[in-house]
Parts: sequence; C-alpha cells; structure tokens
Amino acid sequence: MDSIEVETVAEADLQEPVLIEGLPGVGHVGKLAAEHLIEEFNSKLITRVYAEEFPPQVSVDESGVTELAHASFYAVEADASDLLVLTGDHQAQSHAGHYQLTDTFLDIASSAGADSIYALGGVPTGELVEEPDVLGAVTGEAQTEGLIDAGVEFRDGEPAGGIVGVSGLLLGLGGRQGYSAACLMGETSGYLVDPTSAQVVLEVLESVLGFEVEYESLEERAEEMKEVVEKLQQMQGQQQGLPADDDLRYIG
Amino acid sequence: MDSIEVETVAEADLQEPVLIEGLPGVGHVGKLAAEHLIEEFNSKLITRVYAEEFPPQVSVDESGVTELAHASFYAVEADASDLLVLTGDHQAQSHAGHYQLTDTFLDIASSAGADSIYALGGVPTGELVEEPDVLGAVTGEAQTEGLIDAGVEFRDGEPAGGIVGVSGLLLGLGGRQGYSAACLMGETSGYLVDPTSAQVVLEVLESVLGFEVEYESLEERAEEMKEVVEKLQQMQGQQQGLPADDDLRYIG
Amino acid sequence: MDSIEVETVAEADLQEPVLIEGLPGVGHVGKLAAEHLIEEFNSKLITRVYAEEFPPQVSVDESGVTELAHASFYAVEADASDLLVLTGDHQAQSHAGHYQLTDTFLDIASSAGADSIYALGGVPTGELVEEPDVLGAVTGEAQTEGLIDAGVEFRDGEPAGGIVGVSGLLLGLGGRQGYSAACLMGETSGYLVDPTSAQVVLEVLESVLGFEVEYESLEERAEEMKEVVEKLQQMQGQQQGLPADDDLRYIG
Amino acid sequence: MDSIEVETVAEADLQEPVLIEGLPGVGHVGKLAAEHLIEEFNSKLITRVYAEEFPPQVSVDESGVTELAHASFYAVEADASDLLVLTGDHQAQSHAGHYQLTDTFLDIASSAGADSIYALGGVPTGELVEEPDVLGAVTGEAQTEGLIDAGVEFRDGEPAGGIVGVSGLLLGLGGRQGYSAACLMGETSGYLVDPTSAQVVLEVLESVLGFEVEYESLEERAEEMKEVVEKLQQMQGQQQGLPADDDLRYIG
Repeated sequence: MDSIEVETVAEADLQEPVLIEGLPGVGHVGKLAAEHLIEEFNSKLITRVYAEEFPPQVSVDESGVTELAHASFYAVEADASDLLVLTGDHQAQSHAGHYQLTDTFLDIASSAGADSIYALGGVPTGELVEEPDVLGAVTGEAQTEGLIDAGVEFRDGEPAGGIVGVSGLLLGLGGRQGYSAACLMGETSGYLVDPTSAQVVLEVLESVLGFEVEYESLEERAEEMKEVVEKLQQMQGQQQGLPADDDLRYIG
Repeated sequence: MDSIEVETVAEADLQEPVLIEGLPGVGHVGKLAAEHLIEEFNSKLITRVYAEEFPPQVSVDESGVTELAHASFYAVEADASDLLVLTGDHQAQSHAGHYQLTDTFLDIASSAGADSIYALGGVPTGELVEEPDVLGAVTGEAQTEGLIDAGVEFRDGEPAGGIVGVSGLLLGLGGRQGYSAACLMGETSGYLVDPTSAQVVLEVLESVLGFEVEYESLEERAEEMKEVVEKLQQMQGQQQGLPADDDLRYIG
Repeated sequence: MDSIEVETVAEADLQEPVLIEGLPGVGHVGKLAAEHLIEEFNSKLITRVYAEEFPPQVSVDESGVTELAHASFYAVEADASDLLVLTGDHQAQSHAGHYQLTDTFLDIASSAGADSIYALGGVPTGELVEEPDVLGAVTGEAQTEGLIDAGVEFRDGEPAGGIVGVSGLLLGLGGRQGYSAACLMGETSGYLVDPTSAQVVLEVLESVLGFEVEYESLEERAEEMKEVVEKLQQMQGQQQGLPADDDLRYIG
Repeated sequence: MDSIEVETVAEADLQEPVLIEGLPGVGHVGKLAAEHLIEEFNSKLITRVYAEEFPPQVSVDESGVTELAHASFYAVEADASDLLVLTGDHQAQSHAGHYQLTDTFLDIASSAGADSIYALGGVPTGELVEEPDVLGAVTGEAQTEGLIDAGVEFRDGEPAGGIVGVSGLLLGLGGRQGYSAACLMGETSGYLVDPTSAQVVLEVLESVLGFEVEYESLEERAEEMKEVVEKLQQMQGQQQGLPADDDLRYIG
C-alpha cells in the first residue's frame, strides 16, 4: 500500500460542489453535522482514502465484516447545491501526516471541481451550553459579511488555541491554494457528543448555501444526550450532594 | 539493514497453505495458539523478518546467545492442512510501521501460495472468564456461516474498538488484496496470559481446517495460571478482606 | 506542500545583517525580545517558512482570518546595524524536524548575507528573579571577551542541560558551517512569561551591536506581570497561610 | 546536514582493533567504563558521528563553547591491544534511528579493521549491590568459554528483557554481519551512577584482552557515591524512621 491511497468507488458529476468537512473532533460536532447531511439528502459514496498515518485498525460492521480505517467522500445533492462531504473516524498520527492527508483531500476536492470549503467543528466552552453560538474563521476577510448575516460570530482572539487538525489545515493549506474556505465551530461543552451544536452549525450552512434539511434525528439524539446528562447529574448529586455540570466525563 | 529485511531460512513446499497469525496481543492468546501449533505438529522455521520498526533489542537464549528482534514464519503440517504460521515477540512502533510490516507479511504469504488467513487473538472482557467464547470477524460475509457452525459468535458492535495491529491489518489490507481472511478472538480477562482462551480458539481452527491437536501442554499452563490467580486472590483477600477478580495486574 | 516550504514575501537589501533568533522557549524570553526589536525599529516581513513538522494548525486574527503555522524572518534596521530577525509561534515535532528546520533557517540567513548569529532565550532558575543576569554560550572562545564586556556571564557547567531546540542548533549546526554564533540567555523563573528578562537580553544586544531601543512597552508588560504575580501570591496566601513564589503555574 | 554525518577528526592506524562500546544506559556503567579506558590509556579522538535522531541540543564546555550532540570514536592503545572506543551522551529517538545509527557505527568499526566487539553496560537488580557480578551475552556460543574463565556469568533467562539500544543492536546487527560480539553487563541497582559496576566490567575486559589499567579514579568516584547513598539513607531514616535502600531516586 502507498502511504496514502485514494480509491475511487463511483464517478460523480457534481456542479461546482462545495467541500464540507466533518471529521472527529471536539464534541464530534463536525462529524455529526457531516453525517446528517449524508443521511438526509440523496448521497453517494464516491471516494475512500486509506493512509498509513491512520490507526492500524479495522472496524467490524453488524454482519461481522471488517473495513480498513479510511476517510470517505460523498456526493450529496442538497437542493440547489452540490456538496462534496468528507467524513470518517480518524485523524493522522503525526504532524506531517496531517499535512499530507489534507493535501490529498484538497487534490480530491479540486478534481471534483470544488473551489470553496466549509470545515465544520466544535469549540469547547468548558460548561454545558443550552443555546450554542457558531464561531467563524475564514481565509479572506470578504467572506465574513455573508457569514455574519447567517448568524456566525467572529470574536477577537477566539478560538484561543487556533484551529487544529484537518479543519485547520483545510483553511491553512486551502487558503494558500486559492480556495475560499471557512471554518464553522459550534459552541459545545467539550465533554459530550453534542447533536445540538451540530444542528446550529448546519442551520448556518442552510442559510449560506440555500438548502433545507430536517433535524428530527439530531433532535432525538439531543434529547437522549439530555437524559444522559440528567442521570449523570443525579448520580453526582447523590454522591457529592450537588450537581456538577462542568465535571462530566467525555461520553456519547 | 533495509527498513524491513526478509531472511529465507529454509525452502518450504507447502500445498495451498493457510496463513495463521499469532503475534503478541491481549492475553497473548494469539501467540500462545500459534506457538502451540508449531510445537505440536511437524514444523520448520522458513523465514525471519527483521524491521527497524521493531524494538532495537536482542533476546538472549539459554546458552547466552543473542537473537535480533524479528517475526518468524513456520511451515506446519497440520494433518491434511498445510499451515504457514506467523509469530514473534513484537509489533511495530508507528502506525505506518504496522502497515508496512503487514504488507511484507502478505507478500510472504502470497509467495508461499496462501490465499486464506486466520488472525488469532484475544478480546478483553475485564473479568475472569471460566468458559470463554470465540468472537469472529471476516473479510466477506459468506465466511460467517462456516465459522458459526464451528462455534464462533458474531455479535453486533463487538469488538467495540475494532481490531488493531497486525491482526486487524491482515483483514484490512489482506481483504483489499483478495485474501479470504478471518479473525478469531478468544474472550479473556485482559489481565493475564490466557492458555484456556488460546485453546478454545484452536478448537475452532481444528473444526474449520480439519486437523486434530493435543492440548495437554496448554492445559498444564492453564492450571498453573489458575494457581497464580488463586494465590493473588488470597493475597488480596488478606490485604483487603475480600477477593477482587477484576483488579489483577497483568502477569504471565 | 513540501516538507519545508520557504515563501518570499518581500525583497530585502540588508548590509551584512546579523541573524537574531527568538522562537518560543523558557519564559518566552527570546520571542519577546525578537518581537520587541520588530516593533521598535523600522521592520519588514520578508520570508515565511512553513513546515510539516509544525503543528497542523492555523491561528485566527482579529478579523477572523486564518494564518497557517509558520516562522517569519523580518528585515530590521536597528540604527547602524541591519538585523535579520527570526521569530514565530512553534518549534518542530521531532528531533529530525529540529535539525531540518534549522538547516533551512541557516540557508535563508546565508542568502541574506548574514555571517553572525545571536540566539536569544531564557534559562530557568526555579524562583522569581528581581534582577536577572544574562548567561552566554558561543561557538568560538574568542567571542566571549566582547560579551563579558557587555555584561554577559559565562558560568562553568551552565546551563546544566545544554541548549535545546532551534537556539541550540543555530550554534551547533551554524558553528559547523562557519558562522560566529552566540546564545544569550536571560535568567527567568521558568513559570511566567518574563518581559524583564527579555529586556536585559536586549540590553546586552544593544551594547554589542551598537543600537539603542526604547523599553517602555516591555516595562509596561513587566508591571502587568508583577501585578499578576502579586495577585497569585495573595490568593495562595489566603488558601495556604503563606506566599509561595516557587509554586506558580506557568502563565502569561 | 545528512540524517547521519560522520566527521573524521584524525587518522588512526589501529592493528586489528576491538570495538568497545559504552553509551548511556543503566547506571551509566558502560559509559563510565569506556571513558575510563580513554582517560587511563594513550587515546586519540578520531571520529565524531552527528545524527538528526540525537536530541537537537548543544552542550556547553567550561569556556562557554558549545558542541553539537554527537557520539565519538577514540583510538586507544591498551597495552598489547588496540581499542576503538565508542562513547557519547545520547541514544537515538526512534526505533529506526537506533538501527540506522548502529549500522553506521558498524561501518566505522569495519573501516578501522575491527572484527570483534564488546558492548559494555549495566543490568538492573533493583537493590544496592556490594559485589556486583558481570553477566554476559554473545553472538556465538563458542565465545562463552573464554568469558566464563574471565568470571562472566551466563544465567538462563537473564537479562529478562533482553538487551536494548545500541548495545543490543551491536550484537544483533553485528552478529548478522559476521562480527564476534559480546555484551558485558555489570550488576547495578539501576538507581545510581555506579563506578563499582564499571570497574568489575573493566576487570573482565582486562582479563580477556590482556591489558592492565589503574582504578584509582573510579574507586574515588565509588567512594563519593557511597557517601551520597549514606546521606540519602540518613535523610530518609530521619523522615520515615527507617533506611530504605531500594527507594533512592536516580542520581549521580
């Protein structure tokens, strides 16, 4: 196997698609959002990317059949917009691996005709957030106006640690290659998988790209997470005499 | 030395051999099983694989003579079946190293004429298991029927974290190269070297490949482990007033 | 992207410039000093260096615009001296990455006509220092006399652990390439960002290179840090009944 | 710089020299022994080896002059025997780096005409040892007889974890290249720099290679270490009411 291997699963005829990235990260916000688009719209798996920098691991499906660690590109018809959605279960092991994988992802996006990118993710707040905002970052200042109109906030000095991983590099490397790229980050505690944060990120995307999507399944998962949180708070209340929002272990 | 170096120790004339892999892992189940096949049947060391990704280490034998870290392939005559058994003491250091070593292992298997693979290992349960089951995972759904007949269980969502290391990649990379590969995982506590789990894995293999093997030596080691466990429980019982199965340190 | 990529931002016509390096390190002494030179004198960004060994990360500026992790070279007119000032937010991930980046930095310095180097940094003392000294290390013994005249101390066996990172390698690799290189290390607690230590390092540089610089902004930051320290000591005093200089967390 | 760079400092005309390796390791036994040979006999630095796998670090000598991390080969005239002594302050960062460095060391030894190797080191016992034994390991069983005559012990299953680092690979890789190599390991607590253990290792080498060396300086260092140990035991005795040999931090 090459250090990175691109497998074409199906041909796709996309019209000026927008690359949407949602790989694992804070609160799994980006991944939940990307998977929701794939589930709600007509979508087709078109490309798998295998890499020696991914964990040496197979997943096992419900029939007992294994699949080698990879990232996937889906062609998604979101009303008037064609989307190229990138998701998966892994990030690279080393710094250099992140750069090399993102270069490959950008090559695939370029071949599909994409020239704009939305990297989706979460930004940790350290406490449970009832009504999360969406923070933004862009490769060119001109992009901010449209995003502010769609409700995105740009706050000086946030996110404090910059943006890391593939999301960060899609802007960092993509911007240098001429892509117009933005990162949309839903506020989230950082302790729990957060479907609500994924929903507010998608609502921005709806407004910006002009599609409409149902949220029933995300809302159901959000309800389930709420119940999990309540149970955890009760358990902690019984143990310690008081609830402790900010002390939950990372679960989901 | 090249980054991976294959040393041919002896020629082997194997008839459509089956690759059996048992490298170190949970409970050393796979390694114990593979070594048991080598000891019980007529077997011959045919290939050593050295790699810069293995620890920079020599082992010292009972005469004081050193041997550089490596993995070994043995030609094993298991009744009607020819086996190509892969075992050793090490896994690779990096993600990329795991992929590259597994690629080399598959090349060697291919040169020997193998087209099917059984990767042997353990699956951790977190508690002592008296009568371990064998979990399975396969590269193609058609393989499951024969394995279910041999007593293998396929459980939705297990093993939870997928299969990692060379065992996982023999299915992940092997499957993509056209091998018919299965992983057989004996349940085991995860805290102790587990000869009983190795035995139940081998019993599946006996049924599937049609050979018969003695288990006396594994049963003796299992008895020894039982005594170790009992002593540990007594010691813990004296210290803490109660036995604690699930708190044993990893020993063997 | 190549593993290291040098981007020329502007041409600079420097006369026998001196390379001044201030990358992140103990007390951020070197970085504060380098940035102070860039702010106080007429300066121009001339080169950015991107590297796969830097974190896969973008920073976000006050307009929400991202910038890929990089190191920067500035042309700085410090009175009679031309300076080539190297600064940034990152060091390499691996040992080899440090060597490769420093090689690139030396190539850039060589192209700009530099043949002498001052690497700026801090040396940790473990306790708050009111009046920090500046320790020195050089590539050739002949350099020590001029530095001692400028107030630099050379102490047998210090710094105990040698000098690590790009600063160390600018002397180690630079010296082997014929550069005359010195490292100037301001004493600092090691727990706090230390503008006072940066100032004493710059005062040595003023004396050695014959320029004059204002310190108002560094002195203001030093005052702010003093207030932070006092608050922390009060908080600890209230909690524990006594002040504890040497137990401060790393902040700044 | 290349990933490994060999710098010839001086020519040496050695007659069938024996390679003696003493790099940092358990109790610094090997390094102390190698340095003792260099100090006691007529010796000349002939080769430095720089490597990107060494720490990105310079040491600072008593004049304030820096030296880039490296390993050194010395030509040493030990009575009738010519020795090629390898020592230094560092080991490689990665597994692959250990293999590549050892390959380079063997090339240098080969160019100098060496065909036998003694790798010197310590084997940890976990407690203070008054009269340490020397354990051995060899590349060929025929070598054991002479070593046993010189007082070396070969114990089944020891050292338990094999031999790691450059010492291990000099046997592992050297043996495969046709060198006759042995590892001599002085027993040592593992908590302290141990000049006594270095001395017993050298006494074996004296007997095997037929040279005679003074031990005054090592004995003095051993006395100093004894005093350090006694002070530590007193301090612990005062704190805890009893001395605790086996609980000393690693110092030297």
